[in-house]
Amino acid sequence: MPRWEQGSADRLTKAALELFEEQGFENTSVVEIADRARVTTRTFFRYFPDKREVLFAESDRLRTALVQAILDAPDVTEPLQVVTAILAEFDWSVPGIELQRRRHAVIAANPGLLERDLIKQNDIAIEITQALRRRGVEENAARLATRVGIQLFATAYAQWVERDGGADLRKLTDAAMDLLQTLVPANRVVD
Amino acid sequence: MPRWEQGSADRLTKAALELFEEQGFENTSVVEIADRARVTTRTFFRYFPDKREVLFAESDRLRTALVQAILDAPDVTEPLQVVTAILAEFDWSVPGIELQRRRHAVIAANPGLLERDLIKQNDIAIEITQALRRRGVEENAARLATRVGIQLFATAYAQWVERDGGADLRKLTDAAMDLLQTLVPANRVVD
Repeated sequence: MPRWEQGSADRLTKAALELFEEQGFENTSVVEIADRARVTTRTFFRYFPDKREVLFAESDRLRTALVQAILDAPDVTEPLQVVTAILAEFDWSVPGIELQRRRHAVIAANPGLLERDLIKQNDIAIEITQALRRRGVEENAARLATRVGIQLFATAYAQWVERDGGADLRKLTDAAMDLLQTLVPANRVVD
Repeated sequence: MPRWEQGSADRLTKAALELFEEQGFENTSVVEIADRARVTTRTFFRYFPDKREVLFAESDRLRTALVQAILDAPDVTEPLQVVTAILAEFDWSVPGIELQRRRHAVIAANPGLLERDLIKQNDIAIEITQALRRRGVEENAARLATRVGIQLFATAYAQWVERDGGADLRKLTDAAMDLLQTLVPANRVVD
């Protein structure tokens, strides 16, 4: 979309975040969000189908980038490492770490937003699993690598936003992988 | 609740499942579910706050049982194994494996139901993590063991319902743990 239009979407997201923080998600209307962003309600609905979607403007970009990264990965013989590395290397700080931290807190505090977040995470998991399958990874391995990789990354991501971006997301992800190694029973010989 | 009341809840769940299968979740009203179950709409709302909840009648029993099992576990030094074992040992086939398989398929096919399922899974994850924390497990280890354990079990559970209960859920869960061992990088010495 043209740059001036992208500006409206960004303003709507920031306005929604402010209002959800100030008065709660349930008590905020689309009209108030549009007013705060200085656009019409009609403009709001050009960008977002409802007031939950306004915090997930990045999710299409995220899903497309992650799937493409799986398809482009030089080697998928270690799918869990591929999934976690791709998640850790995504540019999460595009809208700014402070905005990400506030967004994370607002979503966690509102069941309606959390539901939307979880279903988007699930959609992304399904697409990553399919991309791994297309790369020849066996079905259960593709599913488990994706689901475990996302949870592993989510543990690191939660620490990252809570520390206000002072830490390195990639290092936190590596630390979570080290932790997972200590949790999984020692590798047996698999026949 | 008295046995005859439990009967109404079961009939409502079965009626809802049939109607969601026949005509879709979106096209089914609470009135139709109550009619099919031969109870009043008022009775429906005595048991369930809305038509999504009717497929999650078991979730309180599940959450309570899992949390209690964590608190009662003799040893939590291997929290990932504790979480997966407790999930695998829960009596999932109480309403019958055939009903579980149909319920699983209807939820997967309806975004509205899938959202509810995901948020209930998330609520359970939060409570299991808290129970592990109360047992002295470190925060990140408790979170990761819970989240990874649930995903590991979900992989086994999906295979279990797809095979119409012909397989042993505990064996499928062990196989998923073996698979996870092959996905996680070989254990390094942790200092």
